[in-house]
Amino acid sequence: MASSRLEAFSDGVMAVAITLLVFNLKIPDLATTNLADDLGSHWPSYLAYLISFVTIGIMWVNHHTLFDKVAQVDRTLLFTNLALLLGVATLPFTTALAATWLLSSHGRETAVLVYCITLFAISSVFTLLWWYLLRHEHLLEQQHLKVPKTALRRSLAGPVSYAVVTLIALAAPLAAFALCGVVAIYFVLPSRTTRAAGADDPQRPS
Amino acid sequence: MASSRLEAFSDGVMAVAITLLVFNLKIPDLATTNLADDLGSHWPSYLAYLISFVTIGIMWVNHHTLFDKVAQVDRTLLFTNLALLLGVATLPFTTALAATWLLSSHGRETAVLVYCITLFAISSVFTLLWWYLLRHEHLLEQQHLKVPKTALRRSLAGPVSYAVVTLIALAAPLAAFALCGVVAIYFVLPSRTTRAAGADDPQRPS
Amino acid sequence: MASSRLEAFSDGVMAVAITLLVFNLKIPDLATTNLADDLGSHWPSYLAYLISFVTIGIMWVNHHTLFDKVAQVDRTLLFTNLALLLGVATLPFTTALAATWLLSSHGRETAVLVYCITLFAISSVFTLLWWYLLRHEHLLEQQHLKVPKTALRRSLAGPVSYAVVTLIALAAPLAAFALCGVVAIYFVLPSRTTRAAGADDPQRPS
Amino acid sequence: MASSRLEAFSDGVMAVAITLLVFNLKIPDLATTNLADDLGSHWPSYLAYLISFVTIGIMWVNHHTLFDKVAQVDRTLLFTNLALLLGVATLPFTTALAATWLLSSHGRETAVLVYCITLFAISSVFTLLWWYLLRHEHLLEQQHLKVPKTALRRSLAGPVSYAVVTLIALAAPLAAFALCGVVAIYFVLPSRTTRAAGADDPQRPS
Repeated sequence: MASSRLEAFSDGVMAVAITLLVFNLKIPDLATTNLADDLGSHWPSYLAYLISFVTIGIMWVNHHTLFDKVAQVDRTLLFTNLALLLGVATLPFTTALAATWLLSSHGRETAVLVYCITLFAISSVFTLLWWYLLRHEHLLEQQHLKVPKTALRRSLAGPVSYAVVTLIALAAPLAAFALCGVVAIYFVLPSRTTRAAGADDPQRPS
Repeated sequence: MASSRLEAFSDGVMAVAITLLVFNLKIPDLATTNLADDLGSHWPSYLAYLISFVTIGIMWVNHHTLFDKVAQVDRTLLFTNLALLLGVATLPFTTALAATWLLSSHGRETAVLVYCITLFAISSVFTLLWWYLLRHEHLLEQQHLKVPKTALRRSLAGPVSYAVVTLIALAAPLAAFALCGVVAIYFVLPSRTTRAAGADDPQRPS
Repeated sequence: MASSRLEAFSDGVMAVAITLLVFNLKIPDLATTNLADDLGSHWPSYLAYLISFVTIGIMWVNHHTLFDKVAQVDRTLLFTNLALLLGVATLPFTTALAATWLLSSHGRETAVLVYCITLFAISSVFTLLWWYLLRHEHLLEQQHLKVPKTALRRSLAGPVSYAVVTLIALAAPLAAFALCGVVAIYFVLPSRTTRAAGADDPQRPS
Repeated sequence: MASSRLEAFSDGVMAVAITLLVFNLKIPDLATTNLADDLGSHWPSYLAYLISFVTIGIMWVNHHTLFDKVAQVDRTLLFTNLALLLGVATLPFTTALAATWLLSSHGRETAVLVYCITLFAISSVFTLLWWYLLRHEHLLEQQHLKVPKTALRRSLAGPVSYAVVTLIALAAPLAAFALCGVVAIYFVLPSRTTRAAGADDPQRPS
């Protein structure tokens, strides 16, 4: 299978998942006496929505950066990508779970833990994909043969960050949740990774 | 990244968001004694559905008009576009909020305000995108180098209109909400903007 | 705008709308004593799901048949297409409305009427699109200049059928609803229209 | 119609259906005393989510394997594909049904039976599609004329497996449900089918 097919399907799943996050935001019913106060009290939902939205956005960018280098998709790549999509598609659930339980005195450790583990799992699959491409060079486009080596090393930043955040979630769930946002912002900011990948992959007008 | 990739993902998010608006419309349950009356009493939902549907439709058109001129997408453009999609993906929530609270004597100022601010934010990001393209001409296709200058000026109509509507929402939420519809209709009607852009960008059969 | 852009967005909206129909089907809760009986009693939901699914499927086919002939999309075509998508995106609501109220002694006339009017409106927009193309030949691909004339005549079958069904819905909602299914089956069966369109538009391997 | 059009729409429906499965997972409300225990007790939902996710993933792969060989789509192929999409789009419902009722002492036979029959129906339509292509060689791309003969034989593994699982569901619903997972895993593992199809269809960089 050509990678363009897989990218189109993955784009679809990620576009739907990122848009379904909005169901995390609840409409206060008309019995609410002060709408502004009530909306304000749901700030964990807005924060969770924002963090997950940006995180899926980054994953979409990373997904393209990776599959842009791939010429041919084999069965392992196909089903590892499906595992990646499984993680992304689960985020509307884990996001709503974390948002609902974030301010509860009991249970929030569990909720944030589930959220962090999902992010850890997804970022690990990205590392796995780069590792697999390093071992199976024939799947790559000729001009990108050298990319996986550096990309693999850099992609470790994801699982390592989320592993640390997951450990923090055991003791301090609120801090861990905020850190998920910090990690997302960090990945949005321009990094050497992107510039190197960009230099390696000069874009032409489409 | 080539702009076609970004457009495909943005199309997906906008197509899902525009279709999710339908969940704003509630089915009256079987205990309702007069279905026609009950459906009729929900006119704010239908009006909100219509306004948001047309508004997202216009945003989709504007999005293509802009990215048609772009040859290459850099990191800033990528994440500014993500901010745009964040706004559009939030509309099913803010639309339902405005529709639910439109006829309530208390709280409707807040609900309509949130709705108008979302539209103001989205249209501001469009202006920001044109401004960024004006400053980074190398991202444009050669034949469209002159577009951002005029497009930026014209795109200001969006944030300016919605800023005015937002101010009105503080005092007269019903009028402000109706004006959101008027602004949408105004953008649907053919304007000099479109014709000029069309002249600048002759289409060829696909 | 090239018609391929518009088709991709329309495909997205129609794909989401057709898949959201499934929310029309409710899971009986665990208090239900006989699951099989309870599922069986919801046959109007399954029937409505089936009719709307096939109807959107046909609309998708018709949409491609039409825009395959179009080389260039102008502003009128763009927003008339948006009106078409508005109708299609509303079907998950009107389908659920008809299914919920179909067996109720009061209100079912209203529910089925709303459903039939939606289908009438959508099919009318198709006729309108063909009529517009007949008047604006420059938007067509050269080899398809003669298509709109015959297509317009044939497309009238849609609004005419649904107008009759809508009238029947006033007196006999159950019969009208069943007729919506009959109309869908009729359009699925191969007709002279398709064959003629096929002869006019020989496909080449993609 | 060219097969690429049909594939894009089918991709859309499958991407939405696979992502909507997440609504099967419920957020425990704040009254829950032990969140971890409560989440754990919902294992049938996670299992069902996983099985259906992988199953739709496999169907997407099979769908492309089939339509990659098709040069031209006729009316029968178009509407048989619509029947396939109908089955896939129904899976979020049948999955939720099976998950909700899996541990109930009464009714679980019915729930699992509905789930298995859906999978049997979808896989049967795949076999039907290959059979139809065998009989209508002119729809195939020249280099793939020999594919349907072997593909048809292999595709029988689907309906045969699900027929057996459906029969088992009558007596032992839990075992049958687990077997749906086993069948999915079996199809994920590399098989002669894939390798043969791969040899027959050398991919080129996209």
